[in-house]
Amino acid sequence: MLNVISTNEAIDTVLSSVQTDSIGTETVSLANCLGRMAAKDILSGEFIPPFSRSTVDGFAVSASDTYGSSESIPAMLTLKGEILMGEKADIGIQKGECMKISTGGMLPEGADAVVMLEHTQTDFEGLCLVFKAVGPFENVTKKGDDITPGKTVIKKGTVLSSKHIGILASLGITGVECMKKPVVAVISTGDELIPITENPTDGKIRNINSVMLSALLTENGCDVVDFGIVRDSKDELEKVLQKAAKESDVILLSGGSSAGARDLTAEIISENGSLFFHGFSMKPGKPTIFGECFNKPVFGLPGHPTAAYFASVRVVLPLLERLGAVTKPRRTETAVLSCNLPSNHGREELVCVRLSDGRADPVFGKSGIVSLLSGSDGYVVIDRNCEGLKTGEAVTVNLF
Amino acid sequence: MLNVISTNEAIDTVLSSVQTDSIGTETVSLANCLGRMAAKDILSGEFIPPFSRSTVDGFAVSASDTYGSSESIPAMLTLKGEILMGEKADIGIQKGECMKISTGGMLPEGADAVVMLEHTQTDFEGLCLVFKAVGPFENVTKKGDDITPGKTVIKKGTVLSSKHIGILASLGITGVECMKKPVVAVISTGDELIPITENPTDGKIRNINSVMLSALLTENGCDVVDFGIVRDSKDELEKVLQKAAKESDVILLSGGSSAGARDLTAEIISENGSLFFHGFSMKPGKPTIFGECFNKPVFGLPGHPTAAYFASVRVVLPLLERLGAVTKPRRTETAVLSCNLPSNHGREELVCVRLSDGRADPVFGKSGIVSLLSGSDGYVVIDRNCEGLKTGEAVTVNLF
Repeated sequence: MLNVISTNEAIDTVLSSVQTDSIGTETVSLANCLGRMAAKDILSGEFIPPFSRSTVDGFAVSASDTYGSSESIPAMLTLKGEILMGEKADIGIQKGECMKISTGGMLPEGADAVVMLEHTQTDFEGLCLVFKAVGPFENVTKKGDDITPGKTVIKKGTVLSSKHIGILASLGITGVECMKKPVVAVISTGDELIPITENPTDGKIRNINSVMLSALLTENGCDVVDFGIVRDSKDELEKVLQKAAKESDVILLSGGSSAGARDLTAEIISENGSLFFHGFSMKPGKPTIFGECFNKPVFGLPGHPTAAYFASVRVVLPLLERLGAVTKPRRTETAVLSCNLPSNHGREELVCVRLSDGRADPVFGKSGIVSLLSGSDGYVVIDRNCEGLKTGEAVTVNLF
Repeated sequence: MLNVISTNEAIDTVLSSVQTDSIGTETVSLANCLGRMAAKDILSGEFIPPFSRSTVDGFAVSASDTYGSSESIPAMLTLKGEILMGEKADIGIQKGECMKISTGGMLPEGADAVVMLEHTQTDFEGLCLVFKAVGPFENVTKKGDDITPGKTVIKKGTVLSSKHIGILASLGITGVECMKKPVVAVISTGDELIPITENPTDGKIRNINSVMLSALLTENGCDVVDFGIVRDSKDELEKVLQKAAKESDVILLSGGSSAGARDLTAEIISENGSLFFHGFSMKPGKPTIFGECFNKPVFGLPGHPTAAYFASVRVVLPLLERLGAVTKPRRTETAVLSCNLPSNHGREELVCVRLSDGRADPVFGKSGIVSLLSGSDGYVVIDRNCEGLKTGEAVTVNLF
């Protein structure tokens, strides 16, 4: 354990253990595809708009009939009737004729422009006076003006949000081929653990990690299968791992906090696959294990909630992203450090901070402290090649 | 309509039409409370940790027994046994005694510190040699060190994320009182509309707005009841509005795009409640109507998707936020405008832009163009008191 790998080496190991896009795609209904990632370019199969439409309330005309018209010398057109909304005009217009039309109405045959209502007068016997000339296609959206068949409307890899839904709906696309959500099995080990619904008697601790890690995974675009608590028994743990490997794409095992439990995990992984690393130089999170077991990537996370959380953020989420998960956008903020943060050279250190008025105040506490995360706004990473950070230094805060 | 109100006046009118927090709270299970807003301060009812725990693998001791010990002069303690994980030591220790303990193990009575494994040696007959002194509570988290009963662990108004779930789980809190999600009724009107699953024949257009607005509302922490398409008939629309008012907190009516349909909405609102404004000076989005109808706030949005979207973002979301909806964080970015944007003095204008390398390129298009939103990264607001923006000017881009 003298030659513990760095966080970056750990991430590289994790990423190179799987093939890109290995978990495939699925069709998701338009109503459920918010936040999902398009697995392919989406092409239009139609003209949008599907016909030439008026963009105003007025009269559909042949533009050339209005040329030269003005307030003093209006063009005089014969009113042929009205185009009803949602209907095709069963008659077209000829030179010298016009039809009443509403915004969104379909332009009748023979018309190529619309004169706005306010530039007309119709209280004559079947005549419409036009007081202002219009050019061809004025006040009209032509068929296919917006989209023509074959146009790419959504690019592969786009994370779909409400702004994309309109264009899909307009094309009648009701199902979108999306990247599958990785399914992650969550297992907690430890003889000291009880479900969170129970009251801890002496020596027992509620199973915080299953609930917290499930939340982290859900928030980062994964589906979770919760395998609950497994006792520190090789047989039992091996059985659950085998089942989990069948039902998931990635396995997160957390705890037990005792050395014996940690060794058990490493042993089972080695016997049923390969152990890729046992610990990496990050604090908190160092005792994290990674390997392949029953042909699935398996992480053995520390038992302490904060350590398990940070290890997940640093080395598990990159793998899930690679597998197609839409993780939460990682946002950062620059702030001025309010006190010195010494650090061990050679080990990356993550320090929780609270932000106020551009100042980053470190929140200290052992990684066993559960209030550490909820009481912080983000964390600062002290590089392994750095001996610490100084008061007044501008630091990058990774927001939770 | 000469005196059209400004966007800010419209927002003020909308906000002052409802009482704060009028839609109440509900208990949400821990598994479902991600992204929900805590309706009350959450207080601890327990000590965390619930007992004093070891933070290392080693031997539980009375610290004073180790004072003065060193590599050359170890303290010699009688090994009383081992504390098993998840169990209370049934025997305590006396002066001169120690017990083996794992990380997370419960400190036995009589012990107040733990010596790390690597500073001990046990291959003696029932004796444990301690080569390094420890102070009281060294390598120990004391009962209640993290949290004591009565401590506020989550503040009212907190939007719950994975970082909060750990502390709630540790306290055995399985249900959280959250702000109710506002229920929004979405209704599309227009004789030209067909469901998106149908193919438009001449003159018909798919009902884009219901689908797009539902997505926008879902994304912004609301539950949606979709009332589909209603024809431009006063009777029919009135009936649907009455039903919607019973089943929702806020009603969004969109379209019809014709002037007649817009007048119909205003008429029904006036007859069954009050019309607060009919249009405000924003482009696109101007013809937006707001009022109270059957005792519920009702918006009459424009028929054009882009206009309906922007009107929702500008004047509907602030109301939903006031009612307790957890809206998407609004993020902005500063960019340099790549061309002049002239604007009509006296009217706020929203212009879609695409971002690349810190440059904002306006995306032009009539508000009837459905690809406008999906093809943009955000929008720039040109203030009503401004005559336009110039090439090279730094502008704030509101990201979608």
